[in-house]
Amino acid sequence: MRVLLTGAAGFLGSHLCDRLLTDGHTVVGLDNFVTGNRENLVHLVRNKDFTFIRQDVSSQINLPGKLDAVLHFASPASPNPTSPFGYPNLPVETLKAGSLGTFNTLDLARINKSRYLFASTSEIYGDPLEHPQIETYWGHVNPVGPRSMYDEAKRFSEALIMAYFRSKGSDTRIARIFNTYGPRMRLDDGRVVPSFIQQALRREPLTIYGDGRQTRSFCYVDDLVDGIYRLLLSDEHLPVNIGNESETSILEFAEIINRLTNNNAGVEYHSEGRLGNDPERRCPDISRARSLLGWEPKVALEEGLAHTIGFFKEKMRLK
Amino acid sequence: MRVLLTGAAGFLGSHLCDRLLTDGHTVVGLDNFVTGNRENLVHLVRNKDFTFIRQDVSSQINLPGKLDAVLHFASPASPNPTSPFGYPNLPVETLKAGSLGTFNTLDLARINKSRYLFASTSEIYGDPLEHPQIETYWGHVNPVGPRSMYDEAKRFSEALIMAYFRSKGSDTRIARIFNTYGPRMRLDDGRVVPSFIQQALRREPLTIYGDGRQTRSFCYVDDLVDGIYRLLLSDEHLPVNIGNESETSILEFAEIINRLTNNNAGVEYHSEGRLGNDPERRCPDISRARSLLGWEPKVALEEGLAHTIGFFKEKMRLK
Repeated sequence: MRVLLTGAAGFLGSHLCDRLLTDGHTVVGLDNFVTGNRENLVHLVRNKDFTFIRQDVSSQINLPGKLDAVLHFASPASPNPTSPFGYPNLPVETLKAGSLGTFNTLDLARINKSRYLFASTSEIYGDPLEHPQIETYWGHVNPVGPRSMYDEAKRFSEALIMAYFRSKGSDTRIARIFNTYGPRMRLDDGRVVPSFIQQALRREPLTIYGDGRQTRSFCYVDDLVDGIYRLLLSDEHLPVNIGNESETSILEFAEIINRLTNNNAGVEYHSEGRLGNDPERRCPDISRARSLLGWEPKVALEEGLAHTIGFFKEKMRLK
Repeated sequence: MRVLLTGAAGFLGSHLCDRLLTDGHTVVGLDNFVTGNRENLVHLVRNKDFTFIRQDVSSQINLPGKLDAVLHFASPASPNPTSPFGYPNLPVETLKAGSLGTFNTLDLARINKSRYLFASTSEIYGDPLEHPQIETYWGHVNPVGPRSMYDEAKRFSEALIMAYFRSKGSDTRIARIFNTYGPRMRLDDGRVVPSFIQQALRREPLTIYGDGRQTRSFCYVDDLVDGIYRLLLSDEHLPVNIGNESETSILEFAEIINRLTNNNAGVEYHSEGRLGNDPERRCPDISRARSLLGWEPKVALEEGLAHTIGFFKEKMRLK
């Protein structure tokens, strides 16, 4: 397949490039580097099956040649209000990527009669009132809240994709991606995994916002990419959750990282600095992914974290 | 003020034109007539304070001269799946009006440093789990459901408007408009008021979808327009509900119309033909409009319906 992937220089996008290339596909990567990172693609520069376009997905995409698949992964994705890469500081860019970007990529897929896959998110469930989150749950999102630029852009994209599927016969797929971690996460986007690991490697106490009892379910990036790839090859058009079911509290998670890095500095609680409407619990029901895609996560948290810690050690040494 | 109003040929838009002109303002009306109706503006053709642009709000708007206010009212608005004017049959147009249209009008307001007002909707509350609906309620909307093209476009617009307000200092307002009725509703868009009145005037039984116990709160258009006008002149930037608090079941409503038209044909229940995810109850809390705008509805249901029935009688005689 010849695949266009937007957000190719991002954390998930770059791993997806690698997987597609490994499986023998040709990849056109697109990124504007607003939150994506050139370093994530450096190893592909000489790969003859990979080409790169530096462009904002919100502008019309002119790409000659037939495409077999279009994957729309471009968007800021960190909720951290203090990072310049967090979507609270890129509100209009985030809303454009999840509207103009979705129109542009859907139109490109339609012209090419190609498969389409959209990177949606567990954030469309907002601060959920049901646990675990199943795909038929409608979510609990504040349309004018501090996260609305991201949550509503993703919900809008889902509605738009279903409109293209239902009224134009577009061959679409929607992956609802839950928290994912692994090598190539930005050190500086303020998400919990890079923040904790960096603090641990510096022998500092890990900063917990709130009481640490809020839970997340962390999926290792290789598992996630495998789920996305299976969904792309499937003919499932309704949203599918892709994530890890094992729910961990932020405090437990901090303790695991301190243990794996031999950090004795413990944790430190902060009441400020957490973005409003932060969900208390977040955990996917992955029954659909299991039955439709034959997929489930395989990498244990400690194993995935060991790889990730290795990556951050290297990065911090080079800085 | 010189005001740009999108959706000027629509039911609400055309009444708003009249009110603005009556109050001494200059109006540039914009419409593409996808669901708007030329007849609603015929009486303004020779008004020197009114000009009209036939254009899709999803395309860039080039309008010379200073604007003092931009009001974005363009969108299909009927949920009826059997009408060609219902948004289920115009999904991509609806999603464009509520994304590209909102970007375009916001940008125009920003360039002109003008006031901005967006016609949002009670539909952003979806099938609400709280009654009455207060502005802080987050809503209960299915992002991939049969109404998502409308509900998610309006929610997206609200998020986008708050992003422009918070990050660009745009002078924005959001009106959440509840069910409104009055002269100039389309006879053929399948909404309950024109459908019931036409059936009653033809001496047919009124078609009730479902058991008729679902409630709505109907606001007469003059009241609605007055609320919008007050919000436009205010400096309130968070969403404000504009609607009528008196909740009526669809069955009661049918009985009132039969009485006012002396129709003895009664009602007829249909189980099919109702769009999925239809809310069971819908009623605004208008405390904010009362305290911030000094506004509340004044026209009683039977009075407003009498005007509306008069309009439909005339229309049906001319057809």
